[in-house]
Amino acid sequence: MTAELDFLQQTLHQDIPLTRAMELTVTEWDGRRLCLELPLKPNINHQLSMFGGSLYSGAVLAGWGWLTLRLRAAELDDCHVVIQHAEVSYPRPVDGTARALCEGPSDEQWSRFEQTLCRRGRARLALRTWVLNPANEEAVRFDGHFVVQRDGA
Amino acid sequence: MTAELDFLQQTLHQDIPLTRAMELTVTEWDGRRLCLELPLKPNINHQLSMFGGSLYSGAVLAGWGWLTLRLRAAELDDCHVVIQHAEVSYPRPVDGTARALCEGPSDEQWSRFEQTLCRRGRARLALRTWVLNPANEEAVRFDGHFVVQRDGA
Repeated sequence: MTAELDFLQQTLHQDIPLTRAMELTVTEWDGRRLCLELPLKPNINHQLSMFGGSLYSGAVLAGWGWLTLRLRAAELDDCHVVIQHAEVSYPRPVDGTARALCEGPSDEQWSRFEQTLCRRGRARLALRTWVLNPANEEAVRFDGHFVVQRDGA
Repeated sequence: MTAELDFLQQTLHQDIPLTRAMELTVTEWDGRRLCLELPLKPNINHQLSMFGGSLYSGAVLAGWGWLTLRLRAAELDDCHVVIQHAEVSYPRPVDGTARALCEGPSDEQWSRFEQTLCRRGRARLALRTWVLNPANEEAVRFDGHFVVQRDGA
């Protein structure tokens, strides 16, 4: 899975240059669970905690990255993934390195999504992601609706 | 109002260094309406349009900046402003400079907010902001719930 982790890290840093300024890294991928990390310093705000825009970016990229890797694993990598709608809550501030996590949908939701994508060339998927603070507490909860489209579809 | 505009620009670039990487500028403030701009290049994504995390950051900072300037005008600048919850939709991509706008709440909502803040030292305010694409079309709609707390309250 290390090759996949490196692939995602390179893709993010190349295609979305702001992830380099945020010093975002891909730290964990086991085929089901994706973890990204953001250090505090380049993402700090006026309260000396992490900027809400950086936290949102970590959360949306955990979802986007998860989908990108799962589509590759399913040999559906001729797709592009965009965010259409999201809801985000900030129950706690983050005063150090942030960890953004996505564990994907249920197997049933994934099967339905894959079927629709293969049949219609386009499908929607709702993904929940989290950001944890250094004490491993939930600092951000993110619910995103992603649209996936096969190229040429 | 130019002094206020410069004040906000400096505050953003100093306190939230990621706004420098995003090359965010404060372009308009007339006491009621705030406009921020984000160029495409440092905020680009895999689709060669603007990254959803940059668009969200522009939208949340339009609300945060609006509140910061209005609190200063009301001599309530011993406050800090944080985002608690937000909903964001992306009806259109942004293929050039993005303009993030906030026009604030109704006069009635503002009065109620100011009264609560003065009485309790803490108050919530819902703010809608938009991001327009270069064709002046709505590309992002943002509804944020901000919490304002007076220092020492």
